[in-house]
Amino acid sequence: MPRKILLCVLLISFACLARAQSPSGDEAQIRAAMAAQTAAWNHGDIPGFMQSYEDSPDTTFIGATLRKGFQPILKRYQQAYSNSAQMGTLTFSDLDVRVLPGACGKAEIALVTGKFHLERSEKGEAKKDDGIFSLVWRKGPQGWKIVLDHTS
Amino acid sequence: MPRKILLCVLLISFACLARAQSPSGDEAQIRAAMAAQTAAWNHGDIPGFMQSYEDSPDTTFIGATLRKGFQPILKRYQQAYSNSAQMGTLTFSDLDVRVLPGACGKAEIALVTGKFHLERSEKGEAKKDDGIFSLVWRKGPQGWKIVLDHTS
Repeated sequence: MPRKILLCVLLISFACLARAQSPSGDEAQIRAAMAAQTAAWNHGDIPGFMQSYEDSPDTTFIGATLRKGFQPILKRYQQAYSNSAQMGTLTFSDLDVRVLPGACGKAEIALVTGKFHLERSEKGEAKKDDGIFSLVWRKGPQGWKIVLDHTS
Repeated sequence: MPRKILLCVLLISFACLARAQSPSGDEAQIRAAMAAQTAAWNHGDIPGFMQSYEDSPDTTFIGATLRKGFQPILKRYQQAYSNSAQMGTLTFSDLDVRVLPGACGKAEIALVTGKFHLERSEKGEAKKDDGIFSLVWRKGPQGWKIVLDHTS
């Protein structure tokens, strides 16, 4: 096989391999971000937990009511969980990560569903210790970030 | 101005105009689909209401629990609202439609939040008459369809 054709075949193979691995790479990045979220939460670090949310006025959180904007969401978390005892220990379960294929071959959106559980000794304004959530993640310049969180 | 340059300027202007109008076109299509949903619901037509959902085993509905798959979701709606009196009259309010710009200039994903209200004379298995929802819409060959519905 002429050297140029061989090089072409090799390059295309690597490109296909990279494309095939990309969804699981994206899923792994999101799972890692969620593991970092629970680690931050369990250290009483709400700003650290919030690093997975897109820092945008459009970022939306739906709990009992709808809140729009990174800063109002951060403020609400800090108000609803005002100390480490109220934050307790957070665990996620039943995680399902669905990376949606993009039209031009680039994954930009992922849908994550799962359950949360809080093990804690004190309750503040946030009363729920268990719930179900859906998250919309978007891949931007800062990597995968949550643009919509609905927790019920 | 030479004719070729003028033609170029006109073509670029039309392209910009089409791009600028495209999000509102997408938003209008989604709002029209939601109006068709309430019309179908208010005629007691659950399969008609479900036409806005993507007919896929991955389509997800989160209410009290999570259900995956177009058919299980349809079946659940039919079980939870077993007649027209239980379906009643559905209205949506506080609709917010956010069409996300795609990486290659094509809008494929939209996030919709809003509230629902049911005015009805009879309750079946579904007890809630009011709630808040978030929807993820995806534009595919069949147009805009819901891939994730979280209602609480």
